Amino acid sequence: MALFPRLFRRSPSIVAIGGGTGASGLLRGLKEHTDKLTAIVTVADDGGSSGRFRKEFGMLPPGDIRSCLAALSESPLLEKLLQHRFDEGELKGHAFGNIFLAALTQVTGDFASAVKEANRVLSVRGRVLPATNVKISLVAEHADGTKTTGESLVGKVEKPVTRLSIRPSDVKAAPEVVDAILGADLVVLGPGSLYTSVIPNLLIGDVLEALRNSHAVVGYVCNVMTQRGETSGFSASRHVRAILEHSTHDLLDFVLVSTSSIPAKLLATYAAEGSVPVAADMAELSKFAGVRIIAAELAATDNLVRHDSARLAEVLLDTYREFSKVRS
Amino acid sequence: MALFPRLFRRSPSIVAIGGGTGASGLLRGLKEHTDKLTAIVTVADDGGSSGRFRKEFGMLPPGDIRSCLAALSESPLLEKLLQHRFDEGELKGHAFGNIFLAALTQVTGDFASAVKEANRVLSVRGRVLPATNVKISLVAEHADGTKTTGESLVGKVEKPVTRLSIRPSDVKAAPEVVDAILGADLVVLGPGSLYTSVIPNLLIGDVLEALRNSHAVVGYVCNVMTQRGETSGFSASRHVRAILEHSTHDLLDFVLVSTSSIPAKLLATYAAEGSVPVAADMAELSKFAGVRIIAAELAATDNLVRHDSARLAEVLLDTYREFSKVRS
Repeated sequence: MALFPRLFRRSPSIVAIGGGTGASGLLRGLKEHTDKLTAIVTVADDGGSSGRFRKEFGMLPPGDIRSCLAALSESPLLEKLLQHRFDEGELKGHAFGNIFLAALTQVTGDFASAVKEANRVLSVRGRVLPATNVKISLVAEHADGTKTTGESLVGKVEKPVTRLSIRPSDVKAAPEVVDAILGADLVVLGPGSLYTSVIPNLLIGDVLEALRNSHAVVGYVCNVMTQRGETSGFSASRHVRAILEHSTHDLLDFVLVSTSSIPAKLLATYAAEGSVPVAADMAELSKFAGVRIIAAELAATDNLVRHDSARLAEVLLDTYREFSKVRS
Repeated sequence: MALFPRLFRRSPSIVAIGGGTGASGLLRGLKEHTDKLTAIVTVADDGGSSGRFRKEFGMLPPGDIRSCLAALSESPLLEKLLQHRFDEGELKGHAFGNIFLAALTQVTGDFASAVKEANRVLSVRGRVLPATNVKISLVAEHADGTKTTGESLVGKVEKPVTRLSIRPSDVKAAPEVVDAILGADLVVLGPGSLYTSVIPNLLIGDVLEALRNSHAVVGYVCNVMTQRGETSGFSASRHVRAILEHSTHDLLDFVLVSTSSIPAKLLATYAAEGSVPVAADMAELSKFAGVRIIAAELAATDNLVRHDSARLAEVLLDTYREFSKVRS
């Protein structure tokens, strides 16, 4: 959210805020364009292998951090290794990268140091930072006045979220996180689960404050498909509205929406899971004052629907360059 | 076992054959003296976390390989991480390095490739090689005609071993193992469990053959303390005799025995575990034709009795240099 972005230099400093599969794809694309890349990752995941670690070791849930480290590793082998999931024996269901982060947490004494060392030993291009160094929980309020607590539940409850908050509410961001945002040329929110990966970061006071004070161009990459429960029936504008309602009305400089057509066969598969393409409702989107809406064919649709990493990164860099030109 | 060792060069090529704690200490010392260091490690371990991996994943037991990788890693953090043992939850009792090698085995497809990649990603000085790429079992024959099978049992049965063999008996050594021995300037056997770490390597036909054909100076580092069951009551000469009986009478150029005195308090602790200092029976040792016996104060005795890594490496290098001078 910046009026005076820095002059464009060959390799802009980019911060990606999110977590989960969406973030991994984005990072895989962006790392080809810059060596100044920081992934800021929510650590409120309480499901699956991550949740088991959170319960067993009292550590921050490692899942999204792991995926981002894997995406940024220069070594294809290490990337595969981190994401490897044991499918037999006592370790069944555990991703190796989670065990790695658990061991590193125990050896270094805390999760923040563990992630720092992981960045180092995994030949990571750029770096991955947890948004906070304390465990946070998500609390979702619904239209009927009820509340849901916990990331895995918020994602599954199938009632629209009217207001998301975090507990503790006054959690501090890690200092490097604030510095990264303040020093960024481009900040990218999403793609990723709206209420469980993207918005939680904006609820950390320091993160929002840093975004307000940063000179970076700030964009949001809207998801290609809705997520059952979390964003059922959400159009692109409703995604954007949720973000602005949980941050500040002038947070975003641009929004990227995908207009790719999805093959019928894939549509059917996703429909069976309660997921449909996010409608690019341009008329509604155009009503957000000061937000440039960029529509492009961004989806890869081989056997899954997701953002094409390379294409997404190109469009983001192009967009950033245009903003730089206009403002410099 | 060589009559014509290569001319001494600044950094000799050294092969250490063994496995277990003894090998780790040796390697930690040797890596300061050469960048051409190969650790050849027995993979017949069926106890503890290694044994669980062998059973659960059908993989070669990773324990000794892990310890040697840790000892040779240039990174103190990675060394600590590999040796870190989880003490709670589902992972309780597992060494992280074993889980690492298990994941790497699954990702690369086989144990040999996993160890090769581990050498690479762990910043290892030198390299660690499994002696064979197939699982072997140990079979010990006793004086009373009975047999014991399995490393963990052979080490515990408390009956002297009269003859050790491996199953399958015709197992091949990995080609790199043979090449390393043939190209070595110095080969060090031990220190380490006599029947479960040192001798098994000599029972692999290719390894013994390579030792016969190598120009390397070959030495054996005798253990400082006896091991209950495995070597109860063994003097140094009895250790040496066991090695020669399981290989060939002219295998060794030298034997290193420790003459350090052990503090009474430590002696008592060890005695309670059925372990006493290995007697340096020089008169008997001198009877092995063609084997130089070197007695030196080699033990570190802070809270454990073991070889002092730095001192051991120095004495080994000095010994090697003397052989080189004499023979060149």
